[in-house]
Amino acid sequence: MGDRQVLILMGSDSDAPVMQAAAEVLTQFGIGYTMTVASAHRSPDRVRALIDDAHAGGVGAFIVGAGAAAHLAGVVAAHSTRPVIGVPIDSTALNGLDALLATVQMPPGVPVATMAVGKAGATNAAVLAAQILATGDAALAQKLTDYKASLAAKVDQAAARLESR
Amino acid sequence: MGDRQVLILMGSDSDAPVMQAAAEVLTQFGIGYTMTVASAHRSPDRVRALIDDAHAGGVGAFIVGAGAAAHLAGVVAAHSTRPVIGVPIDSTALNGLDALLATVQMPPGVPVATMAVGKAGATNAAVLAAQILATGDAALAQKLTDYKASLAAKVDQAAARLESR
Amino acid sequence: MGDRQVLILMGSDSDAPVMQAAAEVLTQFGIGYTMTVASAHRSPDRVRALIDDAHAGGVGAFIVGAGAAAHLAGVVAAHSTRPVIGVPIDSTALNGLDALLATVQMPPGVPVATMAVGKAGATNAAVLAAQILATGDAALAQKLTDYKASLAAKVDQAAARLESR
Amino acid sequence: MGDRQVLILMGSDSDAPVMQAAAEVLTQFGIGYTMTVASAHRSPDRVRALIDDAHAGGVGAFIVGAGAAAHLAGVVAAHSTRPVIGVPIDSTALNGLDALLATVQMPPGVPVATMAVGKAGATNAAVLAAQILATGDAALAQKLTDYKASLAAKVDQAAARLESR
Amino acid sequence: MGDRQVLILMGSDSDAPVMQAAAEVLTQFGIGYTMTVASAHRSPDRVRALIDDAHAGGVGAFIVGAGAAAHLAGVVAAHSTRPVIGVPIDSTALNGLDALLATVQMPPGVPVATMAVGKAGATNAAVLAAQILATGDAALAQKLTDYKASLAAKVDQAAARLESR
Amino acid sequence: MGDRQVLILMGSDSDAPVMQAAAEVLTQFGIGYTMTVASAHRSPDRVRALIDDAHAGGVGAFIVGAGAAAHLAGVVAAHSTRPVIGVPIDSTALNGLDALLATVQMPPGVPVATMAVGKAGATNAAVLAAQILATGDAALAQKLTDYKASLAAKVDQAAARLESR
Amino acid sequence: MGDRQVLILMGSDSDAPVMQAAAEVLTQFGIGYTMTVASAHRSPDRVRALIDDAHAGGVGAFIVGAGAAAHLAGVVAAHSTRPVIGVPIDSTALNGLDALLATVQMPPGVPVATMAVGKAGATNAAVLAAQILATGDAALAQKLTDYKASLAAKVDQAAARLESR
Amino acid sequence: MGDRQVLILMGSDSDAPVMQAAAEVLTQFGIGYTMTVASAHRSPDRVRALIDDAHAGGVGAFIVGAGAAAHLAGVVAAHSTRPVIGVPIDSTALNGLDALLATVQMPPGVPVATMAVGKAGATNAAVLAAQILATGDAALAQKLTDYKASLAAKVDQAAARLESR
Repeated sequence: MGDRQVLILMGSDSDAPVMQAAAEVLTQFGIGYTMTVASAHRSPDRVRALIDDAHAGGVGAFIVGAGAAAHLAGVVAAHSTRPVIGVPIDSTALNGLDALLATVQMPPGVPVATMAVGKAGATNAAVLAAQILATGDAALAQKLTDYKASLAAKVDQAAARLESR
Repeated sequence: MGDRQVLILMGSDSDAPVMQAAAEVLTQFGIGYTMTVASAHRSPDRVRALIDDAHAGGVGAFIVGAGAAAHLAGVVAAHSTRPVIGVPIDSTALNGLDALLATVQMPPGVPVATMAVGKAGATNAAVLAAQILATGDAALAQKLTDYKASLAAKVDQAAARLESR
Repeated sequence: MGDRQVLILMGSDSDAPVMQAAAEVLTQFGIGYTMTVASAHRSPDRVRALIDDAHAGGVGAFIVGAGAAAHLAGVVAAHSTRPVIGVPIDSTALNGLDALLATVQMPPGVPVATMAVGKAGATNAAVLAAQILATGDAALAQKLTDYKASLAAKVDQAAARLESR
Repeated sequence: MGDRQVLILMGSDSDAPVMQAAAEVLTQFGIGYTMTVASAHRSPDRVRALIDDAHAGGVGAFIVGAGAAAHLAGVVAAHSTRPVIGVPIDSTALNGLDALLATVQMPPGVPVATMAVGKAGATNAAVLAAQILATGDAALAQKLTDYKASLAAKVDQAAARLESR
Repeated sequence: MGDRQVLILMGSDSDAPVMQAAAEVLTQFGIGYTMTVASAHRSPDRVRALIDDAHAGGVGAFIVGAGAAAHLAGVVAAHSTRPVIGVPIDSTALNGLDALLATVQMPPGVPVATMAVGKAGATNAAVLAAQILATGDAALAQKLTDYKASLAAKVDQAAARLESR
Repeated sequence: MGDRQVLILMGSDSDAPVMQAAAEVLTQFGIGYTMTVASAHRSPDRVRALIDDAHAGGVGAFIVGAGAAAHLAGVVAAHSTRPVIGVPIDSTALNGLDALLATVQMPPGVPVATMAVGKAGATNAAVLAAQILATGDAALAQKLTDYKASLAAKVDQAAARLESR
Repeated sequence: MGDRQVLILMGSDSDAPVMQAAAEVLTQFGIGYTMTVASAHRSPDRVRALIDDAHAGGVGAFIVGAGAAAHLAGVVAAHSTRPVIGVPIDSTALNGLDALLATVQMPPGVPVATMAVGKAGATNAAVLAAQILATGDAALAQKLTDYKASLAAKVDQAAARLESR
Repeated sequence: MGDRQVLILMGSDSDAPVMQAAAEVLTQFGIGYTMTVASAHRSPDRVRALIDDAHAGGVGAFIVGAGAAAHLAGVVAAHSTRPVIGVPIDSTALNGLDALLATVQMPPGVPVATMAVGKAGATNAAVLAAQILATGDAALAQKLTDYKASLAAKVDQAAARLESR
């Protein structure tokens, strides 16, 4: 895994359009990642193997997206002491409320850092991963400061567009 | 495991007062069971070992109670092709809605037979287990017919009490 | 009914596109079934007659799909001691939450094995029916083991597709 | 049944403290009633027999209270063309939302006149029954007019008490 | 108003496509009705005048559809002792849950007979109105019996269509 | 009404313990008020008369608390062009969600300024009324500035207490 | 800011199609406004600066629209003693329930006058702002009276159209 | 701040019994912290000053608990590029659903790592903070491994207790 600092897992390839947002942000921050599919329910052994590989490869954080009874982030958290970031995905009739509650309501001792439902959450998972990896990386910390400034600048631009209409 | 036909698992010993209702119904039907605690998140290896033992012992159905982000039934279902019955437990501020959605919204291929939240669900988990085991057991099927009659008889008694007040 | 081991009931023919998923999985497992329409509220006598026929024909499990105030599975469970599997269907403005709660929250003594809302639930209803029927059928049990392996294989394929993009 | 104009049914005798409110209001209006217990799921034959008796006795409206997956009012409505009034009862962890949705979301053709959850609903079920029976009963219509005036008078009294504190 | 036995009110003309279902069923039963628009919040005086006219014209039941903070049925119930039937309409982001709760949760003394959200509810409002008016009208009661038979017949036809596919 | 600048209405005297919080804050700001009970459903004529009196007396804002199908604030807003502030009250099994949605989801043209459910909402209703009345009252505006400072000071004190434990 | 009596803020320019409704109503009432974009989370300093400018310019009310974890109205209220009107916007999978609860459930001392979710809420925010500004402005008060009459007239027209179909 | 690696903030001192759980876990891990009260709405300047101090003192993560319209974690995240962990607190009639949605549904670019509602969430916030700080601290990483083992051991003990009853 080498310079792959983040493992992005998703429960189904139908989650890829959402989770792609996380990959793009990591790329923007220059953070190496692996992105793949593994299901807590349909391929639990694959999940376990991926976690073991990630640990061996020195991964610093997990980003895990899942919908419905979203157990995947919890399963990763059960097997790791490194930060696990969960992205609930809206993939059923219940509008993602099922995935949100199944991801966030973890029992004491096994946290999943839960993000917003959907693409906003996938984007933020990558930002949080960057914040975590920046703990010992001043260059990355500076990139986060620049990123924060760019968010404000984009708001300024949106305001200017709206006011000039 | 021998004549232990059902494995009752719960995520925490604080779930025992609810899950005890399943044990009592199984006893009433003369069905052997093992009841123990194992957490999908805090002791995943123990869960895996218990499932393997249950398979080796010839268990015919699993009854699994859990609260909050209730992943335990799903984890059992991921590792077994025998029926898994889930009991959502109301153990957080969210009134068991979290446990219900985390238990019932399983992805295609990996069913959890979900019961009502709480004690009613634990009772029914045992009745469903009996219905499943009765598939090849005429004596047990007769007990279920008698049980159904007893339910109706109890309603008659309740009606008589109410009408005589 | 003869070799019809499962009765698939739905409350309205508008539920057929969802319930068809159950029929397909049963076919895949080589399990005979009858699929028809009957409404707990609009044709209660037909429901009763179908249950009686099913019992006479030796049906081993019921799969029942319904939306809105989804009472059909509960009505079948009221009249049978064989396993009843409920599939809540999203057919109203309330996103299937009405059907889910009306199906799962059964009182003590009368279980309905509730599946996820919609097509995932219909698929799983058939898998659970197969698990139940496999109690005394080693060949079917083997098919379930193969099916489980095929689920994992499909995840591997999805992962390969995603990683190769 | 004779002068029993209303049949009050409840799914469990634990619902009696709530449903008693309906009985009291009917008594206040001088409307005869029978009140008893019958469960759609545990004693479906008893429910059917009670409906037949009620029809034979000339009952003009049904008042039906139930909690959880509250099917009882729907079952009565399936077998009658006389008005069925449903009272959802808060008897599970889900605060009566399950009973409300299971009672109100009836399919086209089979209405249940749904009231508020709990005691307010039981009271109103009796008032609505009185309104229905008053269709051809001028004396009862006058009592309803008087009752409405008494509601306003009680508000006046409550206001006076509050203002004089 | 003469032979107008039912007043159908809706809070906005955007509710007409839903409420039209009530008008069609009343026509089918040969029940005269008036259908118009009046808003509890934007034209309260018009609402009051329509209620007074309806009382003078001998209306036997009100059918009231409204969305959002659906107060219209409650306002009619506040001013009448005749049955008021409420139809919650899904007209906001909240999927009709707002309209349902605002219609059904009436305080003691002032019932609104609440139907399902949307078109199913509008249909049932008319059926319930027919059931109420049939209290003293044997011919209408017979039509309801025929209607109930037609519901069952339609289920039979749907079943035949499905089974012949 | 004279110097009574605010009319506090509540739907039932059981709401008084919550609405008292609004009265206390108005007193603290030196704002005159009348507080009384009137029900949109049980005493609609009283509500209308109170609104007319309030207009005649020059009231500058209405504070209206109600629970369940909370229509009272909407009814006041229907009859006034002065600001109406709504306080949803948690008085049913549904935890105030019914009152919140029935208060806030007003149709276009008839706003109700909705506050939080319960006592926090009643307190804030009075603060908002003060903010509205301060539009043309510099002394009251100053009191609001002082009040805001006192909120921050109380947080400082709470922090000191916590840190010194 | 001079004659800009209202500041309309929104958290993202994607909220503009909703918030435009507020601007149109203010224009109709002849009330000057500024409308711009500022994010509580992405550009907090800009929010603070806009509030300071608004105070300096004598703004009489704030209208603030935001979706998701809608904090913007609360942030404005934290820094102002002038009325803050919040418009929850439906911009996530959760149908605006997130924005509604994040806007309305303010702690004691810091009110946000919360409107309905979406366009109806934006319209009403402007009507409430007009009601607040009319406190010391008889001409504006008259316009509000005329506006209320126009709402009723439009209902009359809708009724005429419906009845003439 | 020196060796204070974590800043624990809460919106009100009434949140202290919940947030104390975070402090205890940090102590157990030997992680220095400051715990204090600051309100996003009542003392925004204090919040800002505390964030600035924390940055100056080299804090590595924020743990922020708040109830109702829980904006505090979002406000901290708006002003920091270091990880912010949010704990929704159940402090209103709405069972913490308001706090959960207001904490988790953050817009893209500004993540809050959201934990479960209440004490379980506070515990996990501290565990996640330890996981983050362990990024460059092998001794702390080892403590996390030991902690994970202790969780499993406690489950074993609970199982033994249950089985020996």
